[in-house]
Amino acid sequence: MAHLAALVAYDGTRYKGFQRQPAERGPTVQGALETAIARLAGEPVPIAAAGRTDRGVHAAAQVVTFDTRARHDPATWQRALNALLPEDIAVRALREAPAALHARRSAYARTYRYRILCDALRDPLRERYAWRVPRPLDVPAMAQAAALLLGEQDFGAFGSSPRDARAEGFRGHTVRTMLAADCAWQPARGGAATSDEVCCDFTANAFLTGMVRRLVSTLVAVGEGRLSVAEFRALLLARDKGRAMPPAPARGLCLVGVEYPAGLLVW
Amino acid sequence: MAHLAALVAYDGTRYKGFQRQPAERGPTVQGALETAIARLAGEPVPIAAAGRTDRGVHAAAQVVTFDTRARHDPATWQRALNALLPEDIAVRALREAPAALHARRSAYARTYRYRILCDALRDPLRERYAWRVPRPLDVPAMAQAAALLLGEQDFGAFGSSPRDARAEGFRGHTVRTMLAADCAWQPARGGAATSDEVCCDFTANAFLTGMVRRLVSTLVAVGEGRLSVAEFRALLLARDKGRAMPPAPARGLCLVGVEYPAGLLVW
Repeated sequence: MAHLAALVAYDGTRYKGFQRQPAERGPTVQGALETAIARLAGEPVPIAAAGRTDRGVHAAAQVVTFDTRARHDPATWQRALNALLPEDIAVRALREAPAALHARRSAYARTYRYRILCDALRDPLRERYAWRVPRPLDVPAMAQAAALLLGEQDFGAFGSSPRDARAEGFRGHTVRTMLAADCAWQPARGGAATSDEVCCDFTANAFLTGMVRRLVSTLVAVGEGRLSVAEFRALLLARDKGRAMPPAPARGLCLVGVEYPAGLLVW
Repeated sequence: MAHLAALVAYDGTRYKGFQRQPAERGPTVQGALETAIARLAGEPVPIAAAGRTDRGVHAAAQVVTFDTRARHDPATWQRALNALLPEDIAVRALREAPAALHARRSAYARTYRYRILCDALRDPLRERYAWRVPRPLDVPAMAQAAALLLGEQDFGAFGSSPRDARAEGFRGHTVRTMLAADCAWQPARGGAATSDEVCCDFTANAFLTGMVRRLVSTLVAVGEGRLSVAEFRALLLARDKGRAMPPAPARGLCLVGVEYPAGLLVW
């Protein structure tokens, strides 16, 4: 029996999220991966994943683990999976992993990046992976608000706990530890003098359902001056989901990193 | 009668090219634009465009001109068109233009950008607008070969003349003037130490059908060491299309600029 770990990238646009669902609800990333793995393994193989990305959310570095009796070497697995998977999903790395490694339970941190485009007009070539907001943003104010998120806190203002979180031993339904949170202009590209792209990056031990997208929409309210940093702080402390902004669109969100204890998983 | 000019961006992925075709062959950008314009004008309105991009090719700055008896002001035209157009086409600017301005005939130069991704593995989040090549490229050699393209030359090695070019007074079927041609690594992004993206930019008075994509595939052969710069030069001088490489994929190509005589069109 081999225990394998794969680093997976996908364009989530046409998927109903990562997590497998009944086929009639539409394609899922897990479904596509498990179908390809089953073809190579010759039997159904359930996979575990570090992050359950929502419908339309992308990943540059999702991690999945699975067990198999099939005796292909890792390079063969990777090449064969990439040949079988649809164009919008790719295995960027694959290796044998210690039996103790579980893609979700062993991960101590996930990093999500959210891209925002400040542009008054639609821009078809840049909106597939970003949320366009029509007004310029006060990014330093957004960064100041983001810094308030650091540390172990109750993030109930920004999301709900997945149904099975309590069973896995989280202290409280909506307490998470934010290890890094920042909003910054991206470097200008293509000869432009100023950038119109903002990235918000969040690293936490785990995230509540919809949490990053509610954090981003509420930080954008700060950036647009509709909410002060003090009001953002009050909203966080109130732990009342009804006061946060509705979630920002899925298209801007991407899972960009998963951290495991040193040595457990090196690509 | 108003004479209007529009700056149009589109994601060409799902279109059978710019130029209108019988509907059963699939959607075209021209078809989508003319349908939206006709709804606002209340009658069919033919448009002229600076570049006839092929199937799957993108544009950040296509220029179209048209005449209309409808009395909307330019801001209303732009807003209404953007409301009617599909998500993958947008009017980035629109203004009244001098009667003498014809999007195609008045343009003295077009600039195309071709993006290449050097990556041994599929990367779903980066391949929509780039051609992935699995090996690293000798970009200085590509730039050296690209410099040979400058000036007025017969580009018959890289393309055919559109059927009606002779009628419009081009000297010879396949002579064009290359005003700028370069290949360069793009700045690294996202904290990476080195870049894996190469851009090839070409500015010419006009391009032959398929010319940029054949230039790129042949320059990539130089970058991979399959063709020397001297062989590239001989191939250019031989003017024999059979010796160039097959066209690079459409997905990497984007029309990024059109130049008009000073003062004729300022956005």
